[in-house]
This record gives sequence, structure tokens and C-alpha cells, in this order.
Amino acid sequence: MPNTVALGPNAGLIGVAGGRARLVTPALVLDLEAFEHNIAAMAAFAREKAVGLRPHVKTHKSVEIARRQIAAGARGVSAATLGEAAVMVEGGIPGVLITSPVVPAAKIDALIALNRRASGLMVVVDHPDNLTALETAARHAGTRLCVVIDVDVGLKRTGVDSVQSALALAKTALASDALALGGVQGYAGHLQHVIDYAERKRLSNEALRPLAVLADQLRAWGVKDPIVSGAGTGTFDIDAEAGVLNELQVGSYVFMDVQYHDDVEAARGGWRFKPSLFVAASVVSANHAGHVTIDAGLKCFATDGPLPRVTCGAPPGASYAFMGDEHGKLVFANASDRLALGAVVECFVPHCDPSVNLHDVYHCVRGDTLVDLWPIDARGRH
Amino acid sequence: MPNTVALGPNAGLIGVAGGRARLVTPALVLDLEAFEHNIAAMAAFAREKAVGLRPHVKTHKSVEIARRQIAAGARGVSAATLGEAAVMVEGGIPGVLITSPVVPAAKIDALIALNRRASGLMVVVDHPDNLTALETAARHAGTRLCVVIDVDVGLKRTGVDSVQSALALAKTALASDALALGGVQGYAGHLQHVIDYAERKRLSNEALRPLAVLADQLRAWGVKDPIVSGAGTGTFDIDAEAGVLNELQVGSYVFMDVQYHDDVEAARGGWRFKPSLFVAASVVSANHAGHVTIDAGLKCFATDGPLPRVTCGAPPGASYAFMGDEHGKLVFANASDRLALGAVVECFVPHCDPSVNLHDVYHCVRGDTLVDLWPIDARGRH
Repeated sequence: MPNTVALGPNAGLIGVAGGRARLVTPALVLDLEAFEHNIAAMAAFAREKAVGLRPHVKTHKSVEIARRQIAAGARGVSAATLGEAAVMVEGGIPGVLITSPVVPAAKIDALIALNRRASGLMVVVDHPDNLTALETAARHAGTRLCVVIDVDVGLKRTGVDSVQSALALAKTALASDALALGGVQGYAGHLQHVIDYAERKRLSNEALRPLAVLADQLRAWGVKDPIVSGAGTGTFDIDAEAGVLNELQVGSYVFMDVQYHDDVEAARGGWRFKPSLFVAASVVSANHAGHVTIDAGLKCFATDGPLPRVTCGAPPGASYAFMGDEHGKLVFANASDRLALGAVVECFVPHCDPSVNLHDVYHCVRGDTLVDLWPIDARGRH
Repeated sequence: MPNTVALGPNAGLIGVAGGRARLVTPALVLDLEAFEHNIAAMAAFAREKAVGLRPHVKTHKSVEIARRQIAAGARGVSAATLGEAAVMVEGGIPGVLITSPVVPAAKIDALIALNRRASGLMVVVDHPDNLTALETAARHAGTRLCVVIDVDVGLKRTGVDSVQSALALAKTALASDALALGGVQGYAGHLQHVIDYAERKRLSNEALRPLAVLADQLRAWGVKDPIVSGAGTGTFDIDAEAGVLNELQVGSYVFMDVQYHDDVEAARGGWRFKPSLFVAASVVSANHAGHVTIDAGLKCFATDGPLPRVTCGAPPGASYAFMGDEHGKLVFANASDRLALGAVVECFVPHCDPSVNLHDVYHCVRGDTLVDLWPIDARGRH
């Protein structure tokens, strides 16, 4: 039974005709038609290319969305943090891969405890000290932990910096009864947003080459079906075709955002995915010609990317500008444009992952009707 | 009794010597010595100038901090949203002024219900339609709602655009048994960060002039002790001296942040307030010369201002750069600098309000000891 307090003030609008336009705002709106299209499109792509999907929950932080990704054929999910992984495991999601090293001792203890309750949990490792700490903790607990070697493919964020270092970690893992070796990961985060498609392709093909060498060596050492995991919404098609990766950690495709939609997808020559994520906001002040003030500011939208885009409820051509923590400015394109106090508008989110992280609930709509509320279970679970 | 689950994984470190350096990260750290200094410094200033304080809880979203502000002499608190106001009222905080208009019908209903439970609740209004809606709702409910006329003093965000419009609203309020008129508000948000102090002073004195005219007229109409509310951490001293405002809605002074500290305070010719708010983060990858990767990125720090500043735990001169949602890069000043995997560093927050909004708990430290955990009660309460 949903907790209507935690789900906010809009629970009473579920099923009410026209409820989408009457949401108490600001509200994060998920358009189910576009969302379901995106889930199905990526699942169909993966089937066609015979590549696995391990979608990244850092984007949506929702058990319900993870369930739908699994139901559509995903082999598991990726999680950026131990906290996200714990939420997914508690929600019954199998096959969670933690894509950043888990380093502090207290977190390693929690990871080992989580591993007992989880099905198919894996964690990346990029340093011998960390591998030793994981091995020791798993051995002490009498459990077996599955590790994946994280390889830096150019982002310089996490990952070992050479094939040799990766193989040294792999050998250590293979030599321990307390560890299993799941495979290798390489995430080219720096290439997901390269606009020029041919250049994106060239760079990603080059970046992933070490992973092929590593996977071959693991197979030669008897590792059965090692995962070779990586990619994102910017390179998933390139990487599936290149054939190095056997699973894709795509995240943003479920929602799209202004930057992915306008630049990254557009450069493919078409849009495979539809914008599904919006923030509904209300006009709270309308005392000036040329603009009104709405109740969604930088506590509702991520500010690290482009600006939110006004998609409905406002006169054509209206644009968004930040106006502080709690407010935004809707600037009209024409001097005669007006918008009444209380009018509800929607804006397409600028950068989806950190925008989602500012909210507690997805307001799921079908057409103009609010049909469900999904909690953002792992919000703030750093 | 605190909920240790909701308060995160560090509850067991309370009272443990050296616990500050062992926090499970990322963690929002509040240095109580600096924080208490800031509360006391602003309270002393207000007493000296005989001006009231109604500190803004949009900055901290914490009932515990609001209690301490009240205990130090504040006459109430300011809240940016109905959700923040509700959290403060439930926490027993009196004298809440909601500083943005409450417009949608569902929110007005909730406001009227909150007003029954609250002591000294006030809400700003900037439009006759909104005033009518508030009046109707209060009358239907058989309660009396106290409104404050919001005057645009140049920010063009909320507020009436002229003295005449303000007086028209005031007349309507005075004529209704269902409304009380609390006074006027004018917030010069656009002037808080003007670097040049003399220019900041000149502009703020000019901007607030209409409020003096309005307050005089309200007094002439028999309004007893109308509040004249406004100011922020950038202009509180200027505005207290100018004598137009009789209460200050200061927020950021409790924490400071990189921009307020380096630019706004520095231009005063000295620092009245101390940095009190930091994010503790751990090194999670250390495979490159010149930098390490820490577990605090753009889901931990606001990105609308300057960069976070490394304050402790790292080699001198190390600087922070964003590296995606969950990670930051600590760039070393010297080629020979190193930092071990698992080392904990702290960074001063870049823009305090939206940074706080990304966290759930203040980790309150005194020196090197974690002494308490305070929930960020109104986080996400848009």
C-alpha cells in the first residue's frame, strides 16, 4: 500500500480526467507512453544485436523502473553507489553491478552484508589495495564476492590504467576462493556527448580496444562468459556494433534530456528515443509584461547542462531562465503573450540524472491523466 | 528518539574521537563552532541595531537550526515554500512568513489548514486575484489569515510593481474580516551579490525606498507595527543602517559559502561570519599522477555557483573539479603530491542553499568529533 504522505500532495488526482494539468507543483512528470516506447526500443535493439542490457539506475533511482527494464529483458542493472545497489537489492532486483569502487572499510562491511542478501551482485575494483580489502572482508564473512575489473578507457575517473594492471588484479581474484571474477568494465563517459557521430564512433572503437584484449585473456584463463560491460546512451549503438562489449550500461535513454535529445541523438540522424521526463510548474507571479515567474528553479532542475525547455502550457516560443532556488522565469517570445496566475506549464529536463535526484516522486501520466506515483527510492543514496 | 536508518550510516560514530575523519562519505558536515559563532554574531548585530531577525529557512531546511535561531532572539522564520512552512509549523516554530505567493487552489486549501495549527503564520501576496482567493478560502474556513504585501524592489521575480498596486492590495486586506495585514516585504535578491560594497549600498538604499512610503501609509491607516521585511546576507548591514526594514530575512549567514565568503563578505572589509558547511568525501580511485577521484560530484554540490573549495585532508593547493554525477577530481598543485585510497577530504560548499538541498542529514562536528546528526527536515519540500 503506497504511503500517500511520502508520495506528496497529488495522490488524490490519480485517475482524474485532466489531472496532469492540475498537479500541485513543482512536480516531476513521467510520460508513460514515451517512457514505455524508450524501454521497448532499447530492448528491441539489444535483441536484434544480441547484446545484453544492464541499464544504469543512477539515472532513475527507481525500483519500479528497474523492474520494467528487467521485464523487458535486461540481465540486471548497474548502480553507481552502494546505497543505490542496496535499494535495488531490497526491491528484489537481481544482477546489480556497482560501477564505482567501494573503498571505505565501513562501506565494504555493508557491501559484504548486502552480498549475502543479493542475487548476482557484482562490484568493480581498480586497485590492488581495494581488492585485498574486499577479499579479506569476504573471507572473514565466509562469503564469495564477485568482482569486475574496472578499466580506465580515457575518462580518468576510475579504472586501472593499463592492461597489465588489470591482469594483475584478475590473477589475484582468480587465486582466491573468497572472490569470483565476473569480467571487465570500461566506461567512456567522456565520449557519450561527443556531438560528431563519426568522431564519437572512431573514439569509442579506439577506447574499448583494451577491453577486447582483456576479455580474450580472461577466457583463455578459463573465466566462463566474462561480462564486458560499458557504454551509455551516447555510444550504445556504436559499441554494440563494434562487438567488444557484451552488455550495455545505458541509463538516460529511458527519459532523454535536452542535451541528449538535441545533440547526441540528433547527430545519429534521427531520434530513437522520445522525451519522457518533464517538470510541471505553476505561474506564481504575473506582474510584468514579457515574463511570468514559475515555481521551479534550481532546486528542481539540474544546472550543469543546458536550460530546461518549455514544452507545454505556455505561449509558443516561451523560454525558461533560472531565477534563484525556487523560481524560474518564463520569457515570452511576443510582447502580447500572457499567462494567467496559476497556469501550469511543463519543461523538458535539462540533464536527467541530477534533475531526478532533486525530486521524491515520479508523477506518471498517460495523456492528460495522472495514473500512478512512483517513489524515487534511491534519491540521495550517495 | 532519532531514526538511525533515516539519519544514515554514521550514527555509530557519534562521540567517537576522530570520528569526523572517519565519516562514511559523502557526508554534509556542519562545524558547530563556526555555526554557533555565526548565529551569535547575527543576533548580536540585530540587538545592537535594534532590528528584528526572521531568518530564512530556505537555506538550512532544519527545525533544529530554526529553534536555535529563535533561541538567539529571532522573531520567527521566513520560508520560501508552503512545504517548508508546514515542516516548521509541525516542528513548533512560531512566526513563519511564507515569502513567495501561494497560488494554486490545492495549496491555498493546505495553507488555510496550516494556518489553524500555526502561531503567527503570514503569507505574502502580490496580485488581487490571489488576494481574493486567499480571502475567500479563509472566510469559508472561518479563520483569519495574515497577509503581507510583496513589493518588487527590482528583482522582477515576485511582488507588485508599484506603490499604488501595493496600496490597493492593502486596502482590500484591511476591508476583510477574514484577513489581517501584517505589513510589507521587498527582497532585493539581485543586489545581495553585488561585489562593490559602496555600489551595493547605493543600490539597496534606492531599491528599498518604496517600502518606507508604504509602511508610513499603513501606519497612517492604523496598521499597528507593520513588518517591513527583506534583506539577505549581502545587504543586512546596509539595510539595518538605512532604517527602512524592521526585520531581516537573512539565510546564508549561518553557513557562508564560497561566493558569499570570498566576494560578498570580503568586500565589507572583513569576515563577520565563518565557513561552517562542508562536504566530506573519500578517495575512491588513485591510479593517476596529478589527481585522485573522490565520491562527491554534482549530486553533492550545487553547480550554479563557483567550485567547491578543498579545505582539509588534501595536500596544500589541491583543487576540486566536477567529474560527473557521483565523482569529483582532486587536482594536485605539485607533481609529487599523493593521497591514499580511502583518505577523507573536506570541501567548503559552493552555493549553500541548493547544496544543502542535495543531502538528508547534517553531520554536526565539534573539532574532530561527530557530536550529533540533524535531519534536513524540509529537503525537497518544494
